[in-house]
Amino acid sequence: MNTNPLVGRDVVSISDLSKAEIRAILDQAADFERRLQAGERLTLLDGRILATVFYEPSTRTRLSFESAMHRLGGAVISVAEAKSSSSAAKGETIYDSGRMLESYADVLVQRHPAVGSARALADAAGVPVINAGDGTGEHPTQALLDLYTIEREKGALDGLTVAMIGDLKNGRTVHSLSKALAHWKTKLILCAPKALSMPPQLVAQLRSDGVAAIETENMGAALAQADVAYITRIQQERFETIEEYVAYRGVYVITAEALSKAKPGVTIMHPLPRVDEIATDVDPLPNAAYFRQARYGVFVRMALLAMVLGAI
Amino acid sequence: MNTNPLVGRDVVSISDLSKAEIRAILDQAADFERRLQAGERLTLLDGRILATVFYEPSTRTRLSFESAMHRLGGAVISVAEAKSSSSAAKGETIYDSGRMLESYADVLVQRHPAVGSARALADAAGVPVINAGDGTGEHPTQALLDLYTIEREKGALDGLTVAMIGDLKNGRTVHSLSKALAHWKTKLILCAPKALSMPPQLVAQLRSDGVAAIETENMGAALAQADVAYITRIQQERFETIEEYVAYRGVYVITAEALSKAKPGVTIMHPLPRVDEIATDVDPLPNAAYFRQARYGVFVRMALLAMVLGAI
Amino acid sequence: MNTNPLVGRDVVSISDLSKAEIRAILDQAADFERRLQAGERLTLLDGRILATVFYEPSTRTRLSFESAMHRLGGAVISVAEAKSSSSAAKGETIYDSGRMLESYADVLVQRHPAVGSARALADAAGVPVINAGDGTGEHPTQALLDLYTIEREKGALDGLTVAMIGDLKNGRTVHSLSKALAHWKTKLILCAPKALSMPPQLVAQLRSDGVAAIETENMGAALAQADVAYITRIQQERFETIEEYVAYRGVYVITAEALSKAKPGVTIMHPLPRVDEIATDVDPLPNAAYFRQARYGVFVRMALLAMVLGAI
Repeated sequence: MNTNPLVGRDVVSISDLSKAEIRAILDQAADFERRLQAGERLTLLDGRILATVFYEPSTRTRLSFESAMHRLGGAVISVAEAKSSSSAAKGETIYDSGRMLESYADVLVQRHPAVGSARALADAAGVPVINAGDGTGEHPTQALLDLYTIEREKGALDGLTVAMIGDLKNGRTVHSLSKALAHWKTKLILCAPKALSMPPQLVAQLRSDGVAAIETENMGAALAQADVAYITRIQQERFETIEEYVAYRGVYVITAEALSKAKPGVTIMHPLPRVDEIATDVDPLPNAAYFRQARYGVFVRMALLAMVLGAI
Repeated sequence: MNTNPLVGRDVVSISDLSKAEIRAILDQAADFERRLQAGERLTLLDGRILATVFYEPSTRTRLSFESAMHRLGGAVISVAEAKSSSSAAKGETIYDSGRMLESYADVLVQRHPAVGSARALADAAGVPVINAGDGTGEHPTQALLDLYTIEREKGALDGLTVAMIGDLKNGRTVHSLSKALAHWKTKLILCAPKALSMPPQLVAQLRSDGVAAIETENMGAALAQADVAYITRIQQERFETIEEYVAYRGVYVITAEALSKAKPGVTIMHPLPRVDEIATDVDPLPNAAYFRQARYGVFVRMALLAMVLGAI
Repeated sequence: MNTNPLVGRDVVSISDLSKAEIRAILDQAADFERRLQAGERLTLLDGRILATVFYEPSTRTRLSFESAMHRLGGAVISVAEAKSSSSAAKGETIYDSGRMLESYADVLVQRHPAVGSARALADAAGVPVINAGDGTGEHPTQALLDLYTIEREKGALDGLTVAMIGDLKNGRTVHSLSKALAHWKTKLILCAPKALSMPPQLVAQLRSDGVAAIETENMGAALAQADVAYITRIQQERFETIEEYVAYRGVYVITAEALSKAKPGVTIMHPLPRVDEIATDVDPLPNAAYFRQARYGVFVRMALLAMVLGAI
């Protein structure tokens, strides 16, 4: 790539990014992965400061960003539990928080339970803001690392059949990922209990964007066709009765046995943490990609940090 | 400046610092601001470690110090919520804590709810201690950054009329700042509800130090004369009845409209976080200095860290 | 030493380390101490990342490791209160946690209340794991820094009489240290209330390993013979009645007066934090080594980090 299209940009929603911009991010991530693998010490962000501000805990996401910053030679300041912090407790607004944080850091990563909070911070702060999850809203860096994982494991993004399995109603990761996949020639199999199916307006939007989207409750059928199976957790509190939960819970569990009837080599992904929707007998399989997925996330976040800070 | 008068010193109270020492700190802060602005990468504190130990949360102050340390190439270890930490919970004294921390870091920054706790830590530890607030006691770095802000915004410290508005009884920032201003030719307008007026013995001391201090309840009159208006929060719990609180609360609010009758160009300051004592319609005004004030704090803390560590 | 026997190794139990390996660690720690003392800036771990993950707070141990990492030029990511972290709260296993953390850091330090949790993490993670305490199990780095302290203060490890005084039943530090001392020609005086005496099977094991171990309730007699007195805290909750606690508590307190009858120059150690089992009038004595002990811990942890990461 000749130019870096993300300099000074906020990354609030996956929908803000064009296909070319996503392409540039994935390419940059691959470049960083290669260079780290070769033992290169990267110092592109020497002297820069990242602030991670988490109003709800998300150890995995926070550590992933902080690791990415350090891998590029940058420094980190952190509010791991912002809810109990003095400023928030004293009633400080997101606007004022943004005006404060821009004085202390060169780039901000925020996790907040309220939809729209990332946009509010981005509007306030004079430095780039990366959304690390805003309630049921967006989690764009998860979608980007999911794309990177698929391409890295399958060699391409075009021409794949991707099954999304589990709670597709509430899972913000599958919403963001499905929107991102719409840039490529993808067939989606949406496999969920009726009560937890993908929101109809999102399915309609995906189809109008040219995605072949099929809905089913049958996990076996989904696995038989999928090149990639993206699993999400089904949470008990989403159901009206325990009986309903238990019934579904038994069905939507990936085991080595279930995979023996799947399309050979199907890549198994999960945003983690898992509870029991993937059995541990799947872990040793070469196509179990969910732990590699976490590692890829560091490269993708390195790319985002370096690009919005104009270090590329 | 030829010599650095702060090498190895503790910064516990603004009263510990002579006018010449304050001058040296402000000059050093200005030097750092210029060099960062010019894009210089500073590494004066490479290899040094700052420990921030906060027994009550103060996100703003903690992040400001940590940012300052990183901007100078140093490293940070942090106890963001020391109250719940094992050592304090096991009954460890401030003395023992200081003897421990001096083994892990080269400079300590402590926030603690008890008056005198900063001095106790400084007496114990063999490394410099900077007080980041000890209850209703002192907060010397806030006073220093307030001075820096006034000089930076007004071009000088001598010859100014500074109005302090709000809760002057409990506000430790206005106490420290008024003492610091006594080194310069300043006129103070102390504007507060009767119940929240500046402690009489402090007013007497300021006057004996040559400060022209006027007391008033009339915010309009204060704003009409002030070159600088320093606003502090009025907290409901300071009043005996809600009616009294509501009455004052309506009066002591800075709005764009209130400022239209103020002395032109009056600099508006606030230690932040604010709640609603400054209306958001003030934010876009060029003389609204409170967010710049937060930024200046980083330069002042950089100066302090570099000076007590003897890196200047 | 010609080779580094710890490259890529986990440090879960003091029993995993041979005498030669312990020797190599102590020598490396001494080397680091000398070089820091000489003002050398060490950057052996530049570009490496340590993750500290604490499921129960231990400010002292966490800061000691983080300081050690920074003193070697490395970076740190931290979960200071892992219990409340999202992943653990969502039911993530230690196995999955290890698979996650290996993507973010090059070495892991974990504190966890459950015996065996350090081994579980080490089994999962593809990067070295250092146990910073697993319940009543092990705390091997404490034992190593205790050994370093004894050798540093006494000039040798062979031929010493070491008294362990206090709660020897529940104190994991004295268990680990006594096992480590068995590699040298040591005489142990185990001084505890009957109800809190060293577990009989451990005493038997020590004796079969060639340690001369004497048990007593008489602190005065122990101090009269000891070259080193290692004090541990007696906690009220270990007794069945308050009367019993108060009776022992009065006896097992080291004061300057008690030391006047001790063997001259006896080195006083304590894992810290102390409550009142060592009176503050002992602090100024030249043989009060407990605060130096904390400082030595940084050198020992530097050695461990550098060695398991293969930087030596």
